[in-house]
Amino acid sequence: MNSTVNHPAVLRVGIPEKDADLRYACGFTAPDPLIFLKTKRKAILVVNAMEAPRARRTVRGTVWTPDELGLTDERRSSRREWVLALLKREHLKKIAVPHSFPFGLAEALRGAGIRLVLLDEAMIPARAIKRPDECAAIRHCQQAAAAAIRKAIRAIAAAVPDAKGRLTLEGRLLTSERLRTMIRHWLLDWECEGPGLIVACGAQGADPHETGHGPLWAGQSIVLDVFPHHMHTGYWGDMTRTVVHGRASPPLRAMYRAVLEAQRAVLAAIRPGVNAARLHRLAVETLAAHGFRTEIRKGRPVGFFHGTGHGVGLEIHEEPVLGSRPIRLRPGHVVTVEPGLYDPEVGAVRIEDTVVVTRQGADRLANCTKQLEWGGQ
Amino acid sequence: MNSTVNHPAVLRVGIPEKDADLRYACGFTAPDPLIFLKTKRKAILVVNAMEAPRARRTVRGTVWTPDELGLTDERRSSRREWVLALLKREHLKKIAVPHSFPFGLAEALRGAGIRLVLLDEAMIPARAIKRPDECAAIRHCQQAAAAAIRKAIRAIAAAVPDAKGRLTLEGRLLTSERLRTMIRHWLLDWECEGPGLIVACGAQGADPHETGHGPLWAGQSIVLDVFPHHMHTGYWGDMTRTVVHGRASPPLRAMYRAVLEAQRAVLAAIRPGVNAARLHRLAVETLAAHGFRTEIRKGRPVGFFHGTGHGVGLEIHEEPVLGSRPIRLRPGHVVTVEPGLYDPEVGAVRIEDTVVVTRQGADRLANCTKQLEWGGQ
Repeated sequence: MNSTVNHPAVLRVGIPEKDADLRYACGFTAPDPLIFLKTKRKAILVVNAMEAPRARRTVRGTVWTPDELGLTDERRSSRREWVLALLKREHLKKIAVPHSFPFGLAEALRGAGIRLVLLDEAMIPARAIKRPDECAAIRHCQQAAAAAIRKAIRAIAAAVPDAKGRLTLEGRLLTSERLRTMIRHWLLDWECEGPGLIVACGAQGADPHETGHGPLWAGQSIVLDVFPHHMHTGYWGDMTRTVVHGRASPPLRAMYRAVLEAQRAVLAAIRPGVNAARLHRLAVETLAAHGFRTEIRKGRPVGFFHGTGHGVGLEIHEEPVLGSRPIRLRPGHVVTVEPGLYDPEVGAVRIEDTVVVTRQGADRLANCTKQLEWGGQ
Repeated sequence: MNSTVNHPAVLRVGIPEKDADLRYACGFTAPDPLIFLKTKRKAILVVNAMEAPRARRTVRGTVWTPDELGLTDERRSSRREWVLALLKREHLKKIAVPHSFPFGLAEALRGAGIRLVLLDEAMIPARAIKRPDECAAIRHCQQAAAAAIRKAIRAIAAAVPDAKGRLTLEGRLLTSERLRTMIRHWLLDWECEGPGLIVACGAQGADPHETGHGPLWAGQSIVLDVFPHHMHTGYWGDMTRTVVHGRASPPLRAMYRAVLEAQRAVLAAIRPGVNAARLHRLAVETLAAHGFRTEIRKGRPVGFFHGTGHGVGLEIHEEPVLGSRPIRLRPGHVVTVEPGLYDPEVGAVRIEDTVVVTRQGADRLANCTKQLEWGGQ
C-alpha cells in the first residue's frame, strides 16, 4: 500500500494548491512552495516561517522553517538550499522523486552529489482509492453540482423564448454567460467554486471543451457540465445533464436515448475487477448499436470521441481513466461515467454521473433528473 | 526581450491552467496537459483532439493533435510520445526546457538521445513586464477587490455587537466565513473567484496565512485581504485593508499609523531603476522609526516578517519580489506594496495596494479608503 516501501526516502517539492500528490502526501495546503520528505520513519515538511504555525497545527510530522535549517539571507528563499540542508541533516545521499519533480532542481541536486531515483507512478497510487472522508468530500461537491443543475434546469424550463427563439428570463436574454454566473452563485452556498463550467448550446456543445457563449436557444441541446471545486477540502465533483427548452428534434432525441442507454449499461457493469477498457468499449458499442459511429466529417470529429470516464478526487481528471488502457476497477475508485454524442449539425448530448466503486457495484454520489425536454408549450 | 534568442527551441509541457509560463507562452489555456514548442520561426502546440478546434481559433501558430503526429492507440495519450514525435518531425535533437520541466520526462527524452539545456530563468522574463492589455486585466481584478472590500467595510460598519461584543448583521453572527462568502458573491459580478480570501480578526490576523474563522469582534482588528482571480483572463488582483468596528486600542492605532506611513513611503519611492531591496528596507526602517521591531516573542514572530511586496500577474505571487534580493524596478512591473505589523496580543495590520511602475512613479490600479475605525457608537 505504501509507495515508499521499496524506495529510498521520497522527496516532493511544489505548491500544494497546484500539486495534488504533494497536498495528499503532506496533508497540508498552501499557495506557496514547500518541500516534503517522507522516510520510512518520519515525515518532514519545510515551509516559510509565515506558514509554520498553521502547518504545525495541521501536519502529523515535523515542520521546519528555513531558519531552523540554518539558512540565512538569500539562502533562506532558495528551494535548492532548503533541500540540500534537509538532506544533509537527515544524512541522505539518495532520494526518490516523482515524475513531475522539477528538472532544474534535479540537475542542481545531482550537481551536489545527490542520487535521484524516479518513482514509477503517474500519481500516488493510494490516492486513487478514496478513504471514507474523501468520498464524503467528493459527495459534497457532487451534491453541490446536482443542486446547481436542478436550479439551472428550472431556469431553462421557466424561460420564455423571444420572437427569434432565444431564451429570456425575467425580461433579459438567458445567455450561457448569465446561467454560468447563476450556477457559480449557487455553488458558493456549498463553499465550492466552478471555474470551468460548461453551458453550451447547440453546435457549441459539439466542441466538448467550448464553455459556451451567447444566447441559449429554444429547441436546441444545452449541455450543463458542472464540476465544483471545494475551496477548503480541495476535492472536486463532476456532473453533466443535457436539456432542451421545448421540443427536441427527432435526431437529437435519438442521440439522447443512445447516450442514456450507454450510460445505464456502463453504470450497471461497474463492479470490482471489471476492466475500465471493457467499460469504455461497452459505451462505444451501445452507441454503435443505436447507429452512432465516430468519424471525421468536414474536418470535425463527430460521434463519441472522448473517454467514458475518469477518476475524480483532488484533481478533476485523475486515475483511473475509463478509456482504452486496461485498468481493473477496485472498491474506493471514484469515477465519472459520461458517454456523449456530438454532431455540429444536430447538437450535443452528454450525461455524466460520478460514482464510487463498492463491493456490490457503483454507488452514485448524487442524483439528478435525466429528462431531455423542459418547459415550452 | 525574447528568451529564446540565445537558446535552441524551447519546449514547455504541462497544464496551462496551472502553469503561468506555459499559458503565457502559448496564449491558450486548458485544464489538460499540452506541449508547446517555440523555435525562432515557429510556434507549435500539441493538444488532444478535443481541444484542437478551440486551440486553432485562439493560438497564433500551428496546432497538432496526437493523431496528426501519427500516434495511435496508447501512444496517443503518452506525453513522452507527443514530444518525441514532434521533435522528430521538426528534426530537433537539442531543446531548451524551463526549470519546472518534469524530471521524469527529461530522463525519458535523454534516454531517447535528446539533449536538454536548462533555461536560466525563474519565470519567462517578459512576463514580469506587463503589456497594456495585461495591466487592464489586472486593473479589472483590482477594481473587483476594491469594490468587494468597500462592501465588506460597509457590512462591518453596519454590524451590531451582541452582549459579548461579537458582530451581528441582520440578526445573525457576522463570522469570517459568512463575510468571506459575501465577498465571493460580490467578486462573481466581476467574473472573479476568490479562493483564498482572508477575513481574520484579532490574533488570527497575526498569522498572515490564517484565513480566519469564527465571529468577528468589535474593537479588534479585522484584516480583509482580497485577491480575486479572473476566471477567463487568468490574471489576479491583490488588495488588503484593516478595519475595526468601533474603537481600536491605542497600541492598535499606533500599529496602523506606522503601517500606513510605511506604505506611503514605499509608494512614494517607487520609480524605474529603484532597487526592490531598498524599498523593503524603507518599509522596515519606517516601522522601526515608529518603534516596531521584528522579533520572536513566546516562540512566535512579532513585527513585520514578510516581504514588502510581490509581482502580480498570471500568478498571485511572481517576480519581482520586494524583499531582500536586489532587483531594479522597470516600467510595466506590477507589484503589491503591503507592509504589515503583527502582534498576537494586540492584533494585526496590513495595508496593501497593487501598482504598475510607470516612467513617473507608481500608478495605483484601484483605490479604496484607508480608515481604521468604522461604525460603533
